[in-house]
Amino acid sequence: MSDEPDKNLTTSPLSGFMELLPAEQLAFNRIYDTIRRSYEAFGFIPIDTPVLERAEVLLAKAGGETEKQIYRFRKGDTDLAMRFDLTVPLARYVAEHCGQLVLPFRRYAMGKVYRGERAQAGRFREFYQCDIDVIGDGELDLRFDAEIPSVIHMIFRQLGFERFTIRINNRKIFGGLFRGLGIERQSVGIMQAVDRLEKVGPEAVRKELAEMGLPEPAIGRLFDFVGLGGTCDEIIAGLRKMGIDDGGLAEGISELETVVGAIRQFGVPDANFAVDLTIARGLDYYTGTVYETRLDDYPEIGSVCSGGRYDDLASHYTDRKLPGVGISIGLTRLFDQLYRRGVLKTGGSTTTKALILPMTEDMGHCFRLATRLREAGIATEVSFVSGKMKKRLGYADRLGIPFVVFVGDDEIRKGTYTLKDFREGDQEELTEAELIRKLV
Amino acid sequence: MSDEPDKNLTTSPLSGFMELLPAEQLAFNRIYDTIRRSYEAFGFIPIDTPVLERAEVLLAKAGGETEKQIYRFRKGDTDLAMRFDLTVPLARYVAEHCGQLVLPFRRYAMGKVYRGERAQAGRFREFYQCDIDVIGDGELDLRFDAEIPSVIHMIFRQLGFERFTIRINNRKIFGGLFRGLGIERQSVGIMQAVDRLEKVGPEAVRKELAEMGLPEPAIGRLFDFVGLGGTCDEIIAGLRKMGIDDGGLAEGISELETVVGAIRQFGVPDANFAVDLTIARGLDYYTGTVYETRLDDYPEIGSVCSGGRYDDLASHYTDRKLPGVGISIGLTRLFDQLYRRGVLKTGGSTTTKALILPMTEDMGHCFRLATRLREAGIATEVSFVSGKMKKRLGYADRLGIPFVVFVGDDEIRKGTYTLKDFREGDQEELTEAELIRKLV
Repeated sequence: MSDEPDKNLTTSPLSGFMELLPAEQLAFNRIYDTIRRSYEAFGFIPIDTPVLERAEVLLAKAGGETEKQIYRFRKGDTDLAMRFDLTVPLARYVAEHCGQLVLPFRRYAMGKVYRGERAQAGRFREFYQCDIDVIGDGELDLRFDAEIPSVIHMIFRQLGFERFTIRINNRKIFGGLFRGLGIERQSVGIMQAVDRLEKVGPEAVRKELAEMGLPEPAIGRLFDFVGLGGTCDEIIAGLRKMGIDDGGLAEGISELETVVGAIRQFGVPDANFAVDLTIARGLDYYTGTVYETRLDDYPEIGSVCSGGRYDDLASHYTDRKLPGVGISIGLTRLFDQLYRRGVLKTGGSTTTKALILPMTEDMGHCFRLATRLREAGIATEVSFVSGKMKKRLGYADRLGIPFVVFVGDDEIRKGTYTLKDFREGDQEELTEAELIRKLV
Repeated sequence: MSDEPDKNLTTSPLSGFMELLPAEQLAFNRIYDTIRRSYEAFGFIPIDTPVLERAEVLLAKAGGETEKQIYRFRKGDTDLAMRFDLTVPLARYVAEHCGQLVLPFRRYAMGKVYRGERAQAGRFREFYQCDIDVIGDGELDLRFDAEIPSVIHMIFRQLGFERFTIRINNRKIFGGLFRGLGIERQSVGIMQAVDRLEKVGPEAVRKELAEMGLPEPAIGRLFDFVGLGGTCDEIIAGLRKMGIDDGGLAEGISELETVVGAIRQFGVPDANFAVDLTIARGLDYYTGTVYETRLDDYPEIGSVCSGGRYDDLASHYTDRKLPGVGISIGLTRLFDQLYRRGVLKTGGSTTTKALILPMTEDMGHCFRLATRLREAGIATEVSFVSGKMKKRLGYADRLGIPFVVFVGDDEIRKGTYTLKDFREGDQEELTEAELIRKLV
């Protein structure tokens, strides 16, 4: 093996794969840890499934787009694929282990998933999803649907946001409306058209719906429906007032009302959630409550946390009926979007609290002090850099280490330490106990 | 799409891929978090590189075994591979970003790596490695080598072990010895033979060395060397007394002596480390200090934390000389081995501290209480299960939730809560402030 570097080797990461410098990575991890802590505060437990699965298992339920994007390959006789989300592996996991799980099963998962999309700015081929789901046994109380916005609320508050809106809808309302207006056969196309409302405007959508053959009165009623506005309660009252007679619609409205009421009881302020009748969240999967979350000051980012209620998690793998409700945060994209906009504060390039700077030949005293600080939970380094003081302090300065502890013969004799606060510029002489109290 | 489960779909994870039940996963994560906390206490910062890399980059330095085991495939025009360790991606990362990194660069990485080995008990194809490395710029102070055992010591102490031994050697000693005895041309074979000493015994190794053509006196000296025993200081003195004249050997002995001295200064007790002249840690990579770590009560597990010093991390990717020192913990295997032996205590299947049990129709009071407990950092669930008390308590019992908070009309009127301690069987009436103080 040669020790010559191979000039043809590219050392950049693959396109679509995020790689961060230390200060960015620390900012990323702070968001990750905030999400994790919030999930845990609600009693969700971490489950870690493999990144590689049998291709047939991952693709059992998947459509064409997924098949195109998935990383799939053979190793020996096995047809393998990398997971493209955390929901399909959850379904397999619950089907496999459900005899040993206590239901309702509250699980969180935070891990990398893979989609070989066309590379473009803001799109990632490897990205973190942070999911929670509650899986019931045959049935699942509707109040779980109300708890989810409470989780979202805690996360975005703790991330420092005040202005965000959790938009809520219920899929049964769409279904009931379409049946009530006699246009259920075109429901897929209608929903896709309505989804584009914000982007292309009402006239374009009207035209599209007419071209699909929808009668003018139905289009009018549809726009009455989509145009319902005001507070959650006003929208719900407006829905009832439309007077469309359909059992599913009535059920959807009643569920929405219950969920809205319980969300308030969880202490989520009305400023942070809203009923939005245009939200559909895909076509096949969700069957009841659906969620999207937008940052009010950055609407162009789109939804940063979405999900909903589904009737049956694992119908492809088991006969057991397993309804659930969950959400997912696409952390890599969220981080990227916030970072590009300068919303995230990146601090220093380290979490080290104190750098011990030996001013004496014998470092034993410094090493022992370092061990005691570390045992007290204070992230500590010892400077082994030789040379001028400026060079030695430069290391702490460039990394952003906030405190430097000077240890010289004088200090050792007196049993004290000189602590320099880099941000304040202060310097003070402290005993070891004082030092620990100050840094801990 | 059919809703009928496909009976041909296997829901087990792939062979060689670990998948854990909740109580096991929580035990696994406690070890993961302990390692992470210790790494951070020493000022290492987390870097997360992609799981997928260009195959040519991962394989630039790799030998035949790695090429056979690696998961490699094409997607479009790209020849991709899944990382098989965290060191090669670190080398690429440092080569790519070194202009923006502060050196010495202290990084930790804890993530999954992939090796398509033949499946057998205790071998994993997907497993976590937990690595630290310090990378210097042209040079790296020897005292960094002494800090590494201090990290290992903190980790295994915090994992609850007292009886473990960090074995230390220096690769220059082997090199110098071989040169001094004039047998350096057979060094690879000799080291492989010596590595088998514990397994096959001295007679078999002697025979093997003789068959390689080593003269009897050299074999005798080699066994004198391998047989050197006693304390660290006695072994170092014994090495010097052998009187073999080689500059590299002298340098290795001197480095070993310095490292041993500094390890003591970091407060690692002599009971937890030892010089072991038989440790080689592979052939090409390490150039100075090497480490292995054994659990004294489970020697059959082998090394649970290994590493060493290398002259040049990224010679395949850059001209810059980047010496380093690091270790790796194979967490998946460590967990598996400890778990099989019953060494790990798995607790409950949740980290939830309190289950709020509503005894009243209106759950608003319970929801608000849940939010306040969660904001105080207490992991809390609300029971939505209907039915008999026994069934409702059964959920907490089966998961291992330690506390249940009863909220009935009586409690709401009085402004108190009834707290039941599941383990103790106690029950007491508390105000909200008392409840939070008790549970926090």
